Amino acid sequence: MLSAEDNELITRSGPGTPAGRLLRQFWVPVLLSEELPEPDCPPKRIKVLGEDLLAFRDSSGRVGVVDPVCPHRGANLYYGRNEHAGLRCVFHGWKFDVDGRCLDMPTMPADSPYRDRIRLKAYPAREWGECVWAYMGPAAEPPPLPKLAFALVPPSHRYVSKKWQDCNWLQCVEGALDTTHFSFLHMLLGTEEAGTAEAVMERIKHAALGAQAVRNDRFKWVRDDPMPAFSVDEFPAGLVVGGARKADGDDLYWRIAHYLVPNHALAPSAFPGENYHGQTFVPVNDTSCWIYTYTWNPDRPLTEEEREAARQGHTIHAQVDEHYVPYRNLRNDYLIDREDQKHNSFTGIQGVSEQDAAIQDSQGPIADRTREHLGPTDLGIVRMRRLLLGLIRDEMAGRTPQALSHPDEYAVLSGGWVAHKSKALGEVMTERFGNPHGYVGQER
Amino acid sequence: MLSAEDNELITRSGPGTPAGRLLRQFWVPVLLSEELPEPDCPPKRIKVLGEDLLAFRDSSGRVGVVDPVCPHRGANLYYGRNEHAGLRCVFHGWKFDVDGRCLDMPTMPADSPYRDRIRLKAYPAREWGECVWAYMGPAAEPPPLPKLAFALVPPSHRYVSKKWQDCNWLQCVEGALDTTHFSFLHMLLGTEEAGTAEAVMERIKHAALGAQAVRNDRFKWVRDDPMPAFSVDEFPAGLVVGGARKADGDDLYWRIAHYLVPNHALAPSAFPGENYHGQTFVPVNDTSCWIYTYTWNPDRPLTEEEREAARQGHTIHAQVDEHYVPYRNLRNDYLIDREDQKHNSFTGIQGVSEQDAAIQDSQGPIADRTREHLGPTDLGIVRMRRLLLGLIRDEMAGRTPQALSHPDEYAVLSGGWVAHKSKALGEVMTERFGNPHGYVGQER
Amino acid sequence: MLSAEDNELITRSGPGTPAGRLLRQFWVPVLLSEELPEPDCPPKRIKVLGEDLLAFRDSSGRVGVVDPVCPHRGANLYYGRNEHAGLRCVFHGWKFDVDGRCLDMPTMPADSPYRDRIRLKAYPAREWGECVWAYMGPAAEPPPLPKLAFALVPPSHRYVSKKWQDCNWLQCVEGALDTTHFSFLHMLLGTEEAGTAEAVMERIKHAALGAQAVRNDRFKWVRDDPMPAFSVDEFPAGLVVGGARKADGDDLYWRIAHYLVPNHALAPSAFPGENYHGQTFVPVNDTSCWIYTYTWNPDRPLTEEEREAARQGHTIHAQVDEHYVPYRNLRNDYLIDREDQKHNSFTGIQGVSEQDAAIQDSQGPIADRTREHLGPTDLGIVRMRRLLLGLIRDEMAGRTPQALSHPDEYAVLSGGWVAHKSKALGEVMTERFGNPHGYVGQER
Repeated sequence: MLSAEDNELITRSGPGTPAGRLLRQFWVPVLLSEELPEPDCPPKRIKVLGEDLLAFRDSSGRVGVVDPVCPHRGANLYYGRNEHAGLRCVFHGWKFDVDGRCLDMPTMPADSPYRDRIRLKAYPAREWGECVWAYMGPAAEPPPLPKLAFALVPPSHRYVSKKWQDCNWLQCVEGALDTTHFSFLHMLLGTEEAGTAEAVMERIKHAALGAQAVRNDRFKWVRDDPMPAFSVDEFPAGLVVGGARKADGDDLYWRIAHYLVPNHALAPSAFPGENYHGQTFVPVNDTSCWIYTYTWNPDRPLTEEEREAARQGHTIHAQVDEHYVPYRNLRNDYLIDREDQKHNSFTGIQGVSEQDAAIQDSQGPIADRTREHLGPTDLGIVRMRRLLLGLIRDEMAGRTPQALSHPDEYAVLSGGWVAHKSKALGEVMTERFGNPHGYVGQER
Repeated sequence: MLSAEDNELITRSGPGTPAGRLLRQFWVPVLLSEELPEPDCPPKRIKVLGEDLLAFRDSSGRVGVVDPVCPHRGANLYYGRNEHAGLRCVFHGWKFDVDGRCLDMPTMPADSPYRDRIRLKAYPAREWGECVWAYMGPAAEPPPLPKLAFALVPPSHRYVSKKWQDCNWLQCVEGALDTTHFSFLHMLLGTEEAGTAEAVMERIKHAALGAQAVRNDRFKWVRDDPMPAFSVDEFPAGLVVGGARKADGDDLYWRIAHYLVPNHALAPSAFPGENYHGQTFVPVNDTSCWIYTYTWNPDRPLTEEEREAARQGHTIHAQVDEHYVPYRNLRNDYLIDREDQKHNSFTGIQGVSEQDAAIQDSQGPIADRTREHLGPTDLGIVRMRRLLLGLIRDEMAGRTPQALSHPDEYAVLSGGWVAHKSKALGEVMTERFGNPHGYVGQER
Repeated sequence: MLSAEDNELITRSGPGTPAGRLLRQFWVPVLLSEELPEPDCPPKRIKVLGEDLLAFRDSSGRVGVVDPVCPHRGANLYYGRNEHAGLRCVFHGWKFDVDGRCLDMPTMPADSPYRDRIRLKAYPAREWGECVWAYMGPAAEPPPLPKLAFALVPPSHRYVSKKWQDCNWLQCVEGALDTTHFSFLHMLLGTEEAGTAEAVMERIKHAALGAQAVRNDRFKWVRDDPMPAFSVDEFPAGLVVGGARKADGDDLYWRIAHYLVPNHALAPSAFPGENYHGQTFVPVNDTSCWIYTYTWNPDRPLTEEEREAARQGHTIHAQVDEHYVPYRNLRNDYLIDREDQKHNSFTGIQGVSEQDAAIQDSQGPIADRTREHLGPTDLGIVRMRRLLLGLIRDEMAGRTPQALSHPDEYAVLSGGWVAHKSKALGEVMTERFGNPHGYVGQER
């Protein structure tokens, strides 16, 4: 439970807000690279952290993320011509490059000093892991990009998508760290054999051959223990959040996620050899967000079948339309099927991503955290909020987050493991990944 | 005419408002029973008096009207599973019964005291006259249900519907008590023979064989006297509102309606043997409402033809879609036909209910009563406002409305009669119903 | 650049605002005559300067522009019956004529003094130049109508249309006075031979045989000189705004527009013999407006081909639907064609009107003039703002605009001319029109 004040503090990300200033200290993905498919393609309107921006790719392939308002008379550069090396306003022909420099000002004499004085506001932009990232913060020199593990593998080894969600971004982060809800929200009814043919196929697809012979037992362990015991370790890039359920005998089944400050989370499901999943949550405004979603395998290329499954809305990807809006969404009640809910699945909603979206959206445009009643199974969420609120208060006090100076620490993996009940989280992570935080990078 | 302050006072019904507190002293219909057709059927979102609520029917057929927000993490119980004896949140499995008691809390140990401390807010609910009623007030023990006449007859003798309206509820109450507008709004043009074939059929349908041979003369009397003389009598459940028009010779044609506090009205048309009509007006918010509409005959079952006519939008029922929204509504200008308005009907709008809705909606989302110019033919409305404002002021002073202790007084009938001009309202009512208030109940 | 205060002052036109009071001193077009096609036709809802009004044509053909709210109970007279000589409310039959006089009040005795005391608010209305004009100001006696040139020619010599626009009216005025943008916004790419077949046809259509053999050279002069030199002359009805571009040799190509206070502009394109164009900009509210657009030829009737071309969205008319909303508009990004923008036209948007709308709308619902960077080519706009702000300040000080007493001065023509570079604006106008302001009226 948060006070009303803290709930405001932690959820509001517009320009000038404390959390907005914190988020702007970090690089944020602002669109997929595929949304600007080629040099000189049409510019694209985007909205990030409450700011209306324009992205375009210039003749040399560089991406610009700029203020859409022409400094001359305020016409919107969205209607501009993406010409050689820059974007030209169609009202009176002023032309700007990806850094906001004025390349041409035909309504003014060639020797006018105006041309050098006028700049279009532009944020530094980089492409990294199939996404365009922008740095919207105040520093003259942006920090290094976070070395997220999915971005370190070859493009063939990963699949990156995005999806719209109709609620405040923080609810989505909380959902990603809440491994408890797997015992309910994503559950199939009856025995582990239960479920529609499609659901069974889905489970089979997810169950790759792991280092341990655990496979479909996971379904049973998750179903039968709705009270995972939580352990949380802090490290320079965020938190390791482990939830341990009773497995067979004296073993515990661990599902271990990461929270990476300020807006990334890694999923807890992968056993060795399986694909990894992670997400970055980017506020559009305070009541909607884009979720950048990535699946990768450090050891091999993804198959075309795996890519197609992601496109069809399997694993944590959603099935989206050409605007990246999920087909099953708030406006159509996620096509909830009450008969299916009665007999087959816990929600009657198709798709793990859509189930998450339904329940997170249902908490309201901005969840009211003053009315909650949290328990031990909410510990991951409690610790994430405490860390984030601490960073926001640091921001208000002018202190820089330490994670900014540790971009390599983002190169971590999350996943599942089975271990004897005597083992602590750090020991389990070391058994699973060779080190207590899941670090897989080359340097740090 | 009201002051701006009184107009606010009398129209605002949200939580905490004076009129809202008054309305919450009484039972209000919140949905039709048919909207929860069977045990364990899908829950239904409702909005009543500005509050978002959830209604569901449990395994034993009992109806719950509850806060939709799960006390755990604020997920919306609309997506919940309607399981045995209660509704389970699909996020983490907390389960509640129709009274808001927590039946299961799987994320907490079985011996946790939390389970008894946590309650879901639930309003007492009853089914009565094909409607689900809720008591949203503060009293530990709700008052008795109002003994409205339509609810006292067997289900075979009544037809109950509901319809959406796009304006403040009070405009609809005023319309129901305003018998003057029958000389205009619902009028056909020309002689009593005039009108489309359908309109003529309509009139024939409405003209049952009464105790007096008045039938279609009523049309002429209403058309020819647009200045009914009003008399209003107060009684414990509200007001008897009589409007007397010139009939033949020294006779007056009376149309007598009831206002039953705080939000019911009975229609003035029925002669002996004919069907009776009434309505209950329930604010959704301050600019829209549901109108629960009932037709009944104390003496015989309604025929299938009468039920089908109501479904088709005859008498005071509207022709509605599957969401109970009238087909002819504000968004399509009630499909007004200007040619028909020129030649056949006063409005060019089909349906008495739709004519009422058009003109009431047209007064604005909340009618501005500061600009009115009322006359003697508006007396029924003036007296209703005075009574209601008095009750609101009583509420502000902490005084309980007397009608609450007189549920039997709601068992009244309204209707029409022809009487010598020397008779007063009470005498006419006694001629028509055997007593001055139209009382037909078994006890009081 | 304006201060935030001045930007508010100059753009807000609702009742009671300074600019709103100024605009209300003048006659404004409120609908096309064709929208009330015949006596006793259906009334029409209109919104002008933020006021909801109702227009109707009575049995004798007179037009009324009235408050839509019936003074009795506030029902909307839109649903009223347009009967003999007046509009009757369908609620209780009160009836009003075009001047707001109550003709019938059937719910009151015939001798009631009420009937004379009650008036429906009505604005004086006139038909002039295929438009219905209203005077919404405070004067007991409205001023004379402005003698705009298009309204002085026979109906056969003019074509009048209207079109919706999704931004503050002042952006449209600025666009009309900004001859600079012709070098960009409306430009075709490449040589003067370039462009789609349709664009070429368009240019050919616009190029009538003038007194000078200039024709298609205009295209080249506009394309090749994006820095017209501005001269502005003030006269009793407003401003003459001339922009001079380099032509051949020592000649300048002048495009000369008029700003006629407070909300008219005449287009700068016509050479002698060609059709003239003008516009009147009428705020619906502060973020949308109607643009009344007129094409006329003082010397001959317009051909059916010219009328059809206007209907199809050629010259400055838009291609509109049955509600006068352009087919290509803000909601569909003006059907921008990025391929066409790359290869053929500067915008990829079809239609001069639609190009103007796109760029003006893109400045925002109300352009933020505090962030502009104006230069010499914006002089026409600067002078218009200065004049208008002066009139608004006069209004605040209680001073009446002089233009009100000079209705004949509105009878002016704008157009193009080629003149030696030694000539000043007044001399060029005199060469072109015989006098320095373009005056063509019979008297002043």
